[in-house]
Amino acid sequence: MKNPRADVWHRQPAEVERQLKAAVAEENVITLAGGVPADELFPAAELDEAMAAVMRDEGAAALQYGWPEGHDKLREHISAWLSECGVPVSPDAILVTAGAQQGLHLLARLLLAEGGPLAVETPTYAAALQAFDLRRPAWRPVPRTAQGLDLDALQDAFARGGARLLYLVATGHNPTGGVLTARERNAVLSLAERYDAWVIDDDAYGCIHYGARPAPLRSLGRHLDRVIHLGSFSKVLAPGLRIGFIAGPPALIREATFLKQAHDLETATLTQRVLARWLDLHPLMQHIRRCVTVYQTRRDVLVDAIHAAFPRTTPDCATWESPEGGFSLLLRLPGRLDARALLPSAVQAGMAYEPAEPYFVDAGEPSAVRLSFSNVDEYGIRAAVHRLTSAIEAALGPLRTDLPVP
Amino acid sequence: MKNPRADVWHRQPAEVERQLKAAVAEENVITLAGGVPADELFPAAELDEAMAAVMRDEGAAALQYGWPEGHDKLREHISAWLSECGVPVSPDAILVTAGAQQGLHLLARLLLAEGGPLAVETPTYAAALQAFDLRRPAWRPVPRTAQGLDLDALQDAFARGGARLLYLVATGHNPTGGVLTARERNAVLSLAERYDAWVIDDDAYGCIHYGARPAPLRSLGRHLDRVIHLGSFSKVLAPGLRIGFIAGPPALIREATFLKQAHDLETATLTQRVLARWLDLHPLMQHIRRCVTVYQTRRDVLVDAIHAAFPRTTPDCATWESPEGGFSLLLRLPGRLDARALLPSAVQAGMAYEPAEPYFVDAGEPSAVRLSFSNVDEYGIRAAVHRLTSAIEAALGPLRTDLPVP
Repeated sequence: MKNPRADVWHRQPAEVERQLKAAVAEENVITLAGGVPADELFPAAELDEAMAAVMRDEGAAALQYGWPEGHDKLREHISAWLSECGVPVSPDAILVTAGAQQGLHLLARLLLAEGGPLAVETPTYAAALQAFDLRRPAWRPVPRTAQGLDLDALQDAFARGGARLLYLVATGHNPTGGVLTARERNAVLSLAERYDAWVIDDDAYGCIHYGARPAPLRSLGRHLDRVIHLGSFSKVLAPGLRIGFIAGPPALIREATFLKQAHDLETATLTQRVLARWLDLHPLMQHIRRCVTVYQTRRDVLVDAIHAAFPRTTPDCATWESPEGGFSLLLRLPGRLDARALLPSAVQAGMAYEPAEPYFVDAGEPSAVRLSFSNVDEYGIRAAVHRLTSAIEAALGPLRTDLPVP
Repeated sequence: MKNPRADVWHRQPAEVERQLKAAVAEENVITLAGGVPADELFPAAELDEAMAAVMRDEGAAALQYGWPEGHDKLREHISAWLSECGVPVSPDAILVTAGAQQGLHLLARLLLAEGGPLAVETPTYAAALQAFDLRRPAWRPVPRTAQGLDLDALQDAFARGGARLLYLVATGHNPTGGVLTARERNAVLSLAERYDAWVIDDDAYGCIHYGARPAPLRSLGRHLDRVIHLGSFSKVLAPGLRIGFIAGPPALIREATFLKQAHDLETATLTQRVLARWLDLHPLMQHIRRCVTVYQTRRDVLVDAIHAAFPRTTPDCATWESPEGGFSLLLRLPGRLDARALLPSAVQAGMAYEPAEPYFVDAGEPSAVRLSFSNVDEYGIRAAVHRLTSAIEAALGPLRTDLPVP
C-alpha cells in the first residue's frame, strides 16, 4: 500500500505542536500563541437565543441538507455587510465556506495550476501557505516589512516569475499586524492589471484596524473582475460557527461552488441559519466596533510592555512594529535567539508564543515569534512579556533597558 | 487570467440541476429526488436543549477555535458507537470531518495519486465520484448489480488495472439500496489483501438496513491496517450538523488531520459540542432503530407501488430491486425512456426523481432514475409513483400491469 503523506509543509514540527498544545491546556501558562478572538466578546446568550428561534420557526429546514452555495438569507446579510465595507457584491456572487480557510483552499485549487508560480507576501498567514502547499507552487515571495510591501519584488514576481495569482492580507496582516497604505493598494492593483493576474484579498481582519478604515481591494472600483474578496465571521463574531465566504466574479463563484460540493457538499445548515438569525437581530458593525476597542487597548498594552522590556539600540536588540490591525505582533527575539529552542524555557517561565518560522515562505527567520494579544487581558499581557523577558535573560544574561528608544 | 474550471464531472447538467431545484421549491411537487432523512425524525427540541446546555456549561469554548482532529468528547462518543457496531477503534484513531463527503475527499487526496487507478462500484454515490474526479483517476469500474458485486471485475481492477484503492458502499448502497453478503465482504477483503490495496468502506448508511445487521468491513478482524471506515451523523441524526468521521490506521489519521487543517482548519466547534451533548443525553442506537422502522415502512410502500405500476415481463419492462438498506431504489424506466428528457413531464405531473446518470462511472444508463423514499410519507410515495406512471404513459402509451410478476 502507498504510504500516505499530506503535502503540507508550512507547519510547526510535531514537537513544537505538542509543546504548544500542552501549554494551552496549562492553567498557569499565559498563551500569546493562538491568534484567536477574545472569549469574553462572544455573544453566547444571543447565539443561544438565535438557535432557539431557528428551532422554533425553521425547524427541520435548519437540520436538513441545504444547497452548496449557502443559505440565501445569510448570503443577503453578507452582501449587506460587504456593502457597508464599500464592497458592492450581489448575494449570488457570494459562496458561503467553512471559514475563510476553505475559501482559500478552493481558490488555490481553481486559480493555481499544480506547480504553478504564486506570488505571496513573506511572512504571511501560515495556514494560507498550507492551503497553497497542496498545489506545490513555485513560490514567488514578496517581502512585507515594516516599510510595507516590496512593490519591486511584486513586479518581479509577475514579470520574471510569471505569477498570475497574488495572495495578500492587505489589512491586519498576519503575523505583523500591518495595514497597506492606499498608495500600496493602488500599486498592487495596477500591477495586477498590467500582468493580468488574479488577486486574493484575505480580508478576515478587514474590520479589525486601529486607524482610519482601509479600503478593501475590491472596493477600488475598476478591478472587480480580478479581485476576489475573502471574508470570515471567525474574527468578528465566533470561530466556532466556522463560517466564511468568497465574493468574486460570478463565473468563478459558480465553479468554486461545484468544487465545494465535491469537498464537503455544503457548510453546516444549522450554523448558517443561527448566524443569519443573529444578524437579523443584531447590528454586526456595532458589535465589531465594541470588539475593536478592546483589541486596541490590548495592542497598546503589548506594545508598551515590549517597549519597556526590550532595548532597540544594542547590537543584540529585538525588533518589532506596532500592529495597525489584526490580532498579533511579530517580534524578532534579541540576540537572534532561536524561537523554537527557547519555547520550553518560556513555557517553564509561564508564557507561550508561536515560533514564526512557518509564516515565512522561503528562508525562515528562526528568531521571529508571533505574539497574539487578542485573547489575553491587560494584566496577562504585561505578565506574559515579563515572563518572556525572564526566559530570554536566562539564556542571554540581563537585557539593557536603560537605552532611549530611538 | 486563467479561466477557472472545477474538474468535477459526475454531476447533473446545469439544466437538470435547475429543474430539480425548482421542483423541490414547488409545493405541489412530491420529490423522490433527494436522498435525505425524514424531516419529522429530527430531534429538534432535543438539539435545542443540547445547545442551551452547551452555552450554559461550556460557554466560550464552544464558540472558540478547536483542534483539527475534532472535539475529544465527540471522538469518544464515536468510538463508543463504532464499538456497538463491532468496529473497535480508539478515539485518537478518529478524525471528525465536515460530513462523510469531506472524509472521502481527504482520503482521495491521500491515497490516490493524480491520474492513478481507482476501483469503484458502478453505479455508486455520485458525490463520491465528484470527490474522486478531482484526482482525475483512471477508473476501474466494478459492476454492482442485482446479483451483487462483480468479484471477477474487482480482481481484474486490482490485477490488470493496477488499482490499490477500492471505494465501496457495502451497506445501504447508493443508489440501489443493496447490502453486500458476508461472503462478498470476505471476498473483497481477501482480494484487497492479495493485492495489498486500501479499502474505503463508506458506512454512512451502515445502521440503516432492513434485514440482519451486516458487519462493517473494519469489524472483520485481521484487515484493520487496510480498511478505512467512513461514517456520518447525517443519515441517522441530522445532516444540518454536517458531521462525519474517518476511522482508520493512526498514521493515516494523522496525515488526514494535517490535510484537513489545510482545507478548513477544523469542523465547527459549536455543532461538534452540541452533538456530543446530545449523545451524552440520548442513546443513539435507540433513536436509529426508531428511524429505521419508519424507513422500512416507506421502502415497503414504494416497492409495492412500483410492483403494482410497472410490468416486469414485457419487452419494454422496467427493472428494479427492493432496497435492503439506505434511502433509495434504482429504477430503469420502461421502454428505455431517457430519464433526463422525461423529467419535465414528471415534474409537470407533480413528482420529481433524480436521473441516475451521474452515479455511473463509465457508460451511463440514461433510463435509470434514483427514487428516494426516505423523506416522503406513505401517501406521498403512492401518489408520486402514480404521477410518474402518468408521465411515462403520456410518453409510451398505457403500461400493461395485468401480467403476473415473475
